Amino acid sequence: MIGAGQLARMTQQAAIPLDVELVVVAESDRDPAVLAGAPYRLAAPADGPALVAATEGIDIVTFDHELVPPAALRALEDAGRVLRPSPAALAHAQDKLHARRALAAAGFPVPAFAPVAGPGEVAAFAGDQGWPVVLKARSGGYDGRGVVVVEGPAALDGIPWEAGWVAEEFLDLAAELAVVVARRPSGEAVAYPVVRTVQVDGICRHLAMPAGATGAADLAGRVAAHVGAVGICAVELFVVADGRLLVNELALRPHNSGHATIEGCTTSQFENHLRAVLDWPLGAPDLVAPAAAMVNVITPDAAADPHAHLPAALAVPGAHVHLYGKASRAGRKVGHVTALGATPEAALATAQAAAGILLPR
Amino acid sequence: MIGAGQLARMTQQAAIPLDVELVVVAESDRDPAVLAGAPYRLAAPADGPALVAATEGIDIVTFDHELVPPAALRALEDAGRVLRPSPAALAHAQDKLHARRALAAAGFPVPAFAPVAGPGEVAAFAGDQGWPVVLKARSGGYDGRGVVVVEGPAALDGIPWEAGWVAEEFLDLAAELAVVVARRPSGEAVAYPVVRTVQVDGICRHLAMPAGATGAADLAGRVAAHVGAVGICAVELFVVADGRLLVNELALRPHNSGHATIEGCTTSQFENHLRAVLDWPLGAPDLVAPAAAMVNVITPDAAADPHAHLPAALAVPGAHVHLYGKASRAGRKVGHVTALGATPEAALATAQAAAGILLPR
Repeated sequence: MIGAGQLARMTQQAAIPLDVELVVVAESDRDPAVLAGAPYRLAAPADGPALVAATEGIDIVTFDHELVPPAALRALEDAGRVLRPSPAALAHAQDKLHARRALAAAGFPVPAFAPVAGPGEVAAFAGDQGWPVVLKARSGGYDGRGVVVVEGPAALDGIPWEAGWVAEEFLDLAAELAVVVARRPSGEAVAYPVVRTVQVDGICRHLAMPAGATGAADLAGRVAAHVGAVGICAVELFVVADGRLLVNELALRPHNSGHATIEGCTTSQFENHLRAVLDWPLGAPDLVAPAAAMVNVITPDAAADPHAHLPAALAVPGAHVHLYGKASRAGRKVGHVTALGATPEAALATAQAAAGILLPR
Repeated sequence: MIGAGQLARMTQQAAIPLDVELVVVAESDRDPAVLAGAPYRLAAPADGPALVAATEGIDIVTFDHELVPPAALRALEDAGRVLRPSPAALAHAQDKLHARRALAAAGFPVPAFAPVAGPGEVAAFAGDQGWPVVLKARSGGYDGRGVVVVEGPAALDGIPWEAGWVAEEFLDLAAELAVVVARRPSGEAVAYPVVRTVQVDGICRHLAMPAGATGAADLAGRVAAHVGAVGICAVELFVVADGRLLVNELALRPHNSGHATIEGCTTSQFENHLRAVLDWPLGAPDLVAPAAAMVNVITPDAAADPHAHLPAALAVPGAHVHLYGKASRAGRKVGHVTALGATPEAALATAQAAAGILLPR
């Protein structure tokens, strides 16, 4: 697995019972998956030759992020590495413009969008769609980074246009959903229960499942198949106030919106990612309780110390705390809490109680 | 954790989300917990000075087996190590005669027993209790080793008496049960649902829970408290055909009879072992499904290759396969399969289906 963050860390947990030898390509020996005991090799994600060396002797190469650029992916393929997902599938998570174009061309519902290279093109787009306009960096953005809501032409100063941007219609959202799909090379796929996510400043704060959402699971499954996903494919969806269900973003790897599957579902997204990329039969994605919820533990500053409050948080009945071994920093996800419950609201209340103890105000 | 077998391996899995740094004291760098990525130090379990060196700088010392002899435990205590459980508690798992005497003296129901040092004492015991007599080695026995059913005086040839033996009444068993208890230093404790275990040749083949057994959980909780257990204490019980409920053996560590708690219960025995020895609040032991079952994967010979059949076994819906990274050998436990179900029988059928695929006849 290229990348050794919390997704690789939780994949390592899933690899143990299956006795799968997961080797991670890390940037540091303090990366979360390395601290969890995964054997590791060091390489920067954009360094093709280093990645080729680091994946010597490895049967299947997969990813915990989208940071390996196309040239490095090509170097891996040229060296005979088996990449799952493929570079062509990964491109849908690496380049928002490519994803929008590909999905729109295939008839999937997406927000109105246009590539923009400067203020004039944004103004032209706003002429059609109205202000505000949402500007998204074509690549590199996550957790709210790389997204700007532009209220009008005066707010376009200082945009680094050379990075590549997509303008999108500003949507009045009724809800944000996510569907985690696991898919084998053969096309066999399972979809997890639909999750409702709640973002603040573009970063997922919490989620609950199941979310009633007619057509979301089917739409996500068709999207995953269309892009040729192998492994986990998380499909983020917008429910617009006018009733439209639109495809927002894709992740071609285990995803934050699937963390509650560890305790909440028969098979976790991490185990199913391994099973899918190894082309093994997939595990059942069904809930083991009526509902599950997850709250991210996002530190407000470097002084926050969730570890110090861990025993107190564990006193919350039914709270499952996950800490990633990451140092605290303003706005950094350092863990999450999952809980099951009779309803999504009840599960969320339990998870929030424990998360609130980990990060007292 | 002293010992790096499958119990330490599954404890390592539980340590990852809690971000607990579990260091194992291994005998080999191929031990199951080392292969799962736990940082390790090498020492033989009977080598006191080596154990003292290997536990340098460690906050809490716990165990995945009973193989550290009293002298080595004393060496650890003398060096200031915090042992959980204590040597006094561990003695109940290390010396069957001590356990029987201590529990009988405290009024707990145990089989009729007597220490025996030769054929004459066995014959005297049989004069009171009748033949057959069950001979158990005071220490070192497990999985049926160290247990001999003696049909009459002629069968006593070749017993190595110097090892120390306990004679026990031969019981007509209606069932064997186990109760896994987690207990903190303060005495706070939780008991998992009662498990019914099925042994063949003294080795647990499979189990299911919950088992209806009036008084079993209460009895086990009182036993764990009486011996001063800290961490997991597994209490094995006999249900005799005449209706008696007797205490058989204790284990002062995570135990085979608790493996189904990983998927079957809100908090696994491995997580609760960590929480208990760290003196953190314990997690709920309740089942997340109506029933759960587990089947051990015991290889018939060195040629058995469960890994080769793993994908096929994973095609059994709801089967959770755990492989320990151990080489196959006649009669060796190399993994287990857990399943949930509407009834213990249904769960067992699922687990047996997958286990049968891992080890085709």
